[in-house]
Amino acid sequence: MNTLIKNATIVTMDEDNKVIQNGYITIVDDKITYVGKSLPEDFLPRVIIDGKHKAVLPGLVNAHTHTPMVLLRSYADDLPLQEWLFDKIFPIEDQFTAEDVYWASMLAVMEMLKSGTTCFADMYFFMEEIAKVVSKTGIRANLSRGLQCFDTDFDPKQDRRLLENEQLFKDWDGEGNGRIKIALGPHSVYTCVPGYIEATVELAQRLGAGIHIHISETLKENQECLNKYGKTPIRHLYDLGVFNMHTIGAHCVHLSDEDMDILKENNVNVVYNPTSNLKLASGITPVKRMMDKGINIALGTDGASSNNNLNMFEEMHLAALISKGVEGEPTLIRAYDALKMATINGAKALGIDHEVGVIKPGMKADLAIVNLNKPHFYPMHNVMANLTYSAQAADIETVLVDGKILMEKGEFKTIDAEEVIYNIKKISERIF
Amino acid sequence: MNTLIKNATIVTMDEDNKVIQNGYITIVDDKITYVGKSLPEDFLPRVIIDGKHKAVLPGLVNAHTHTPMVLLRSYADDLPLQEWLFDKIFPIEDQFTAEDVYWASMLAVMEMLKSGTTCFADMYFFMEEIAKVVSKTGIRANLSRGLQCFDTDFDPKQDRRLLENEQLFKDWDGEGNGRIKIALGPHSVYTCVPGYIEATVELAQRLGAGIHIHISETLKENQECLNKYGKTPIRHLYDLGVFNMHTIGAHCVHLSDEDMDILKENNVNVVYNPTSNLKLASGITPVKRMMDKGINIALGTDGASSNNNLNMFEEMHLAALISKGVEGEPTLIRAYDALKMATINGAKALGIDHEVGVIKPGMKADLAIVNLNKPHFYPMHNVMANLTYSAQAADIETVLVDGKILMEKGEFKTIDAEEVIYNIKKISERIF
Repeated sequence: MNTLIKNATIVTMDEDNKVIQNGYITIVDDKITYVGKSLPEDFLPRVIIDGKHKAVLPGLVNAHTHTPMVLLRSYADDLPLQEWLFDKIFPIEDQFTAEDVYWASMLAVMEMLKSGTTCFADMYFFMEEIAKVVSKTGIRANLSRGLQCFDTDFDPKQDRRLLENEQLFKDWDGEGNGRIKIALGPHSVYTCVPGYIEATVELAQRLGAGIHIHISETLKENQECLNKYGKTPIRHLYDLGVFNMHTIGAHCVHLSDEDMDILKENNVNVVYNPTSNLKLASGITPVKRMMDKGINIALGTDGASSNNNLNMFEEMHLAALISKGVEGEPTLIRAYDALKMATINGAKALGIDHEVGVIKPGMKADLAIVNLNKPHFYPMHNVMANLTYSAQAADIETVLVDGKILMEKGEFKTIDAEEVIYNIKKISERIF
Repeated sequence: MNTLIKNATIVTMDEDNKVIQNGYITIVDDKITYVGKSLPEDFLPRVIIDGKHKAVLPGLVNAHTHTPMVLLRSYADDLPLQEWLFDKIFPIEDQFTAEDVYWASMLAVMEMLKSGTTCFADMYFFMEEIAKVVSKTGIRANLSRGLQCFDTDFDPKQDRRLLENEQLFKDWDGEGNGRIKIALGPHSVYTCVPGYIEATVELAQRLGAGIHIHISETLKENQECLNKYGKTPIRHLYDLGVFNMHTIGAHCVHLSDEDMDILKENNVNVVYNPTSNLKLASGITPVKRMMDKGINIALGTDGASSNNNLNMFEEMHLAALISKGVEGEPTLIRAYDALKMATINGAKALGIDHEVGVIKPGMKADLAIVNLNKPHFYPMHNVMANLTYSAQAADIETVLVDGKILMEKGEFKTIDAEEVIYNIKKISERIF
């Protein structure tokens, strides 16, 4: 299927940071075949998207979330962390069925597509349900089964979660024209005994899978790790061999200088979750120091229970603002830096930057199209500043993944929105 | 004209913080006549607004902005403060004509109405143009002529700016069925010599006008004030008699304990501008300490050049997040607190809380109606958390001021949007 986008402002996010005014993009099947100032003569499009008053950017990558937690959106807010987690979140999550997870993830995908997100990294349970959602909806994802084990005598051959993650990999890795990637999801140093993390690394090596893990989210986590193992979570994970694998490290809020050197030397990808870190009062992520070290920093929403949405425009906005304010330096994290975090850096974090994250020929056509014809974008001085500081998720008009239009003017092409809302209401009535 | 809103979730913001499910609001002319669970029998509406899947909240109050600065939106970002102000903002502002200010303010009102703002406090020049905009569009506003004077030998009877502000008061205060209030706008302690501030206070007393002023926005301002006058800006303004008048104090980022006591004892209204303070790296406003003292804290966007929009949902969102993260306390600034800042506290700051800010009989019908039927609001656990943490400005569907619908589903009833955009483009081409 041939698609043409014409007369658009193209925010390529390509190395030389170029924005093409009145540009053309041609798409053949799942791939971009041309990006430039003129319409290729021999191109016969079946679908034409008029880009007048519109910006096209690489689809946003939400590099750390737990999609089914949308069921807990606005259920428990403004509470102390322990009360929030143990009295509110955990008891409810215990009641989730496979079917609940399916519909919740569907709702999350609706929200993400509507806000320009074309790819997400998810860690949860009943992950085969989420794989089905990704397969059906046409979005792109990195999925990992959340793994935890407090028992030092566990048997890796019998561990239910490890077996589930392995099966998930066998059943789903590479499915959906390569849109689905499966990683392993050891939850954190405080929920996995060291031997279990080693068993996970071993499995990752055997399968050729990456790892998605929470790291140094809170001071408490760091303190307990230092007390127990005499080292920081990052040093501990390094010693256990985790960083030999491609790693998505969510949070990384509390880091020593040595921690950052380890992250850099091992090409560990950090996912910054500004809303979640602020809302749960986890701390202020040292973004400037990590950027100075050259560490790859992607952006994530975390779960909707600590956000309360899956809106990457809010994360870009916050990322661009927080460091300026906290470090007292208005030149920190420019609009372009925030856009990078949400696009190419996210693609790198998920190990798919050869496929998505910039707009250029040969890449997959994962695109978010923003309607710029809104009062809050006029006058048009700088499209990157407009996208980072002024845009709302609702400005997204069209979203393509793998060359297919999945959402256009609020309408979903692969999702029955009414069916999803009907089921979410039913689930919500049952559980709450 | 009788209007009925039926079956809505009404977020009254009334003292007892009550939310009415499936509620009714009746409006006669400019005023709310009933709020409750049942439809008054004898009410014959001419307009009926179906509130199913909708939340009605008091129209948001943007308590500190400079509307014409939308012309500078995304023109200069991520720059050091001095370069931003002296090389970029000031030289451009110098070129603004009265007509430019008119159209720019029109654009700002479009943006504000679309995002649920029904009232704003503005300080700028060519203010009679903005009064015309307020009069024509039907929005509510507190307008002050920005006053500055570096000359200790000025003559208050000859000072152009003071005379303009006085004339503005005489021509416009109370106009538009009371929608327009005129205040005096001494810019700050660093742009007004002490005698000039005293002359402003004298004029305010003579007219019975309030004062709108920037206070302690940056550390530099405080340092210079201490060096020059041996006291903090707040002590200095107190000694000059400013706080004898109803005062809107924008920013108040850098405060001593004594400063806060002065603010509290004199009922000075603080306007917190979270985006602007972060973006310009002005500092972290001590919101918790001010709340503990019982100081009234409203919210503002500041000008679009330091934001880059006039979106009060972003300010609520930031207000609820920043203090949690910076103070390390997830219970600080609850969703309800943020909503209060944007509604009733804003009304108090502008001295119109007897007219707007809560939804109850006798108040002016300034209302913002949010469409809750969006993926990012499901499931519906808590409407206040949804509005503060998950809502976008674009979720606003209908806005009423003084009982009149000014915006409905993106359409303006009193503004020719195409004419405004046409003129903004023309102005932008001329100036930039």
